[in-house]
Amino acid sequence: MVVKEIIHEIDSIVDQEFDSLIASLQDFLKLKSISAQNIGMEECASFLKDTMESIGIDCKLLRRDGAFPVVFGEILNPSATKTLLIYGHYDVQPPEPLDLWDSDPFDPIIRDGKLFARGATDDKGNLWATIMAVKCLQQSGIKIPINLKFFFEGEEEIGSPNFKAYMEEHKELLSADYTILCDRGVHESGRPQMYLGHKGITHTEITIKGAKRDVHSGQAPFIPNTGWQLVWLLNKLKDEHDQILIPGYYDNVESPSAEDLDLLKKVPFDKKDYCEIYGIEDIVPQNEGVEALTSLLFNPTATINGLTSGYQGTGNKTIVPNQASAKLDFRFVKNQDPDRCVELIREYVQQHFEGEIEIKIGDVRNPSKVSPNAEVVQVAIEASQMVYKEDPVVWPMLDGAGPMSLFEEILDAPAIIVGLGAPFAYANTHAPNENISLKNYSDGIKMMAATYYLYGMRD
Amino acid sequence: MVVKEIIHEIDSIVDQEFDSLIASLQDFLKLKSISAQNIGMEECASFLKDTMESIGIDCKLLRRDGAFPVVFGEILNPSATKTLLIYGHYDVQPPEPLDLWDSDPFDPIIRDGKLFARGATDDKGNLWATIMAVKCLQQSGIKIPINLKFFFEGEEEIGSPNFKAYMEEHKELLSADYTILCDRGVHESGRPQMYLGHKGITHTEITIKGAKRDVHSGQAPFIPNTGWQLVWLLNKLKDEHDQILIPGYYDNVESPSAEDLDLLKKVPFDKKDYCEIYGIEDIVPQNEGVEALTSLLFNPTATINGLTSGYQGTGNKTIVPNQASAKLDFRFVKNQDPDRCVELIREYVQQHFEGEIEIKIGDVRNPSKVSPNAEVVQVAIEASQMVYKEDPVVWPMLDGAGPMSLFEEILDAPAIIVGLGAPFAYANTHAPNENISLKNYSDGIKMMAATYYLYGMRD
Repeated sequence: MVVKEIIHEIDSIVDQEFDSLIASLQDFLKLKSISAQNIGMEECASFLKDTMESIGIDCKLLRRDGAFPVVFGEILNPSATKTLLIYGHYDVQPPEPLDLWDSDPFDPIIRDGKLFARGATDDKGNLWATIMAVKCLQQSGIKIPINLKFFFEGEEEIGSPNFKAYMEEHKELLSADYTILCDRGVHESGRPQMYLGHKGITHTEITIKGAKRDVHSGQAPFIPNTGWQLVWLLNKLKDEHDQILIPGYYDNVESPSAEDLDLLKKVPFDKKDYCEIYGIEDIVPQNEGVEALTSLLFNPTATINGLTSGYQGTGNKTIVPNQASAKLDFRFVKNQDPDRCVELIREYVQQHFEGEIEIKIGDVRNPSKVSPNAEVVQVAIEASQMVYKEDPVVWPMLDGAGPMSLFEEILDAPAIIVGLGAPFAYANTHAPNENISLKNYSDGIKMMAATYYLYGMRD
Repeated sequence: MVVKEIIHEIDSIVDQEFDSLIASLQDFLKLKSISAQNIGMEECASFLKDTMESIGIDCKLLRRDGAFPVVFGEILNPSATKTLLIYGHYDVQPPEPLDLWDSDPFDPIIRDGKLFARGATDDKGNLWATIMAVKCLQQSGIKIPINLKFFFEGEEEIGSPNFKAYMEEHKELLSADYTILCDRGVHESGRPQMYLGHKGITHTEITIKGAKRDVHSGQAPFIPNTGWQLVWLLNKLKDEHDQILIPGYYDNVESPSAEDLDLLKKVPFDKKDYCEIYGIEDIVPQNEGVEALTSLLFNPTATINGLTSGYQGTGNKTIVPNQASAKLDFRFVKNQDPDRCVELIREYVQQHFEGEIEIKIGDVRNPSKVSPNAEVVQVAIEASQMVYKEDPVVWPMLDGAGPMSLFEEILDAPAIIVGLGAPFAYANTHAPNENISLKNYSDGIKMMAATYYLYGMRD
């Protein structure tokens, strides 16, 4: 059969199995697997392993002490010379605030052609498409012409604390030529979408501690107010022009290359639509086009994720709060040294605060970037064109973070991201009413089946 | 009988009835009456009224639409020419955080001679002593030589939104020569304690609203971050030297008078003890003695009571929070115009923030001050000396706020505060493990009985 016929065959089988493919995703989404709250993780990993085995993928759970298991799978082809590693994560963000969901986040229901559930796009919907692609190829009798490996972790939403160790401990098992991370979604325009890199990240929590207990606010002139102290400290960390005020923090940060700018020029970005989607007046940097995309992708960020201090209930409580904390994430760009940045953050905070303060800084994830000429990129572009009948949107960098750099650093298997879920602006990832359209999902299955096939067929 | 014998008689009856006086306070403390959360208010008011009637006090509930009732009581003496109005409040602060209480806040138990419960000192313990004083006088057959009126409100802990209207609507009913507010406690030294004035206050809540929903923090460079916006705004409101930065805010603020300073010199203040009690290194202004007390009592304050934004649960959540809010109280000192200050706050915040912001400002309470030469002050000092066998600590001003100015403004019945509860530093008012010692409570009953009697006996 020629390639075109194979793609047609894949199309047919996915369309034919549509209902059962949806139902099985719903079963997967019903399982709570909230890593930040340690809810349902083992049950979800077992379910995933059982499903993969039923498709004919050899499977095992990789384990580390105190870590959620990695679900590893492989389907080997003795005659194949190429190996592709597929990454996804089966853990999800906490569903809170629950009162803003229109339906139960763990009872996936279909409305207007969309499936609503926590993890629908991020990342259970993506992950499920990668294994259902195997199922569909098997069912239509198309031999997979490569070795395929699957690495599904359960700690992505808590910063993947054991990801690196898992990789190092199973270097041989995971060895591959390239890695494809299936996460995120297609472009808002409906065009397929991929990312050749991402930012680095670390999660921090700064906690200021004051008096032994909350004190009646009549004593406010005497008692250190941790709420005010937190305000004054954070104000020294970043100014109103979004500039991080830590000396040396921007060392080595590079402007985008000519190649980067070429890719950015082809990325559709309609600022008006964007602002309407999020209900904002303008984007913060108030610029346009490639300049705006450069602001989004090539700048380090320091983001408050949450603030907590004192009384937060109904009405008032006249206290001086004895504790105040801020959760922040810091994202790093290519050429920044994240480990050095973390040291700078810690030193700066300690220098600018007298008193009891706790600075928790999580593991550091490095930024990553793959060349547009890499074979895996060419295959993904070709598969996109055949399945979606459109050119994909190729981002030189993702605004978010990920584990891509480690695939290159540890496994020598450079990674790209291919988005199979709902478009980011509509997916409500990390927010109430997360969803994936049924079409996104079935296209995703086709895309991955085509990718597995085409990669093996290339010289 | 001479005065001394009467005081002795009061002593005896209180000591004799000790157990039943404690038991009845426990019954009162068991009733939740959390105004901020609208829990148990009617039940508590009814219980209070029934108890007062059982003592022979004519009682009724005063009502306003949407308000918690005032429990009013009076015991008139046809031959009396003087009238004293007693104020207390039967509502309490929310008990949270519950996990920091050593016992149930609404199951009052006695440990080490102290009764632990929400409201033990603030203000149910104080209030109960004022009516148990009547009960003891009645039981010992001592005729109360004045007209006594009781005004017990249920909205003190939410800023007394209907207090003024209640007073205006019942001006005649409440008319009196002087008012005694029974709230707070004896001095840390064990000496009795009173306050001739207090600060004014208003409660505010500032809420900044951003995008339609929380957004994945990969989008941080584009999406306005309400957490950062709140930090930058609050930082413009007060600086690290505790100076409120609103132009004109300190207009007319006066330094303490020579008379104020004389009183302050006699107020015991041990900074070392104070810091140890609250577990702080030093008081914020880092000064001593009368200078420190001046900082405490004669300065306007702007106090963060609580901060809320974004994700506050376990672990991390990589979001740009679409809402951030701060609860603050502002306390005013003598000669400040609180209504003008509120306008200044509102204008300043609006001038310094572009975007969607909600500024809720509650009712304003004015500061108040009574002369040390007023008859009620002299009586309270005399009663203190006879009951406690010690000179009272007389504060020209209280660090907290209260409704005292209204008694003078509306009823022409100038008010002082007499503290019958546990010393402030140990009482844990507005905090976990609030308490009153059994001795504080029985002394409080004696103090009020003596005050009722002595006031009537004075020429």
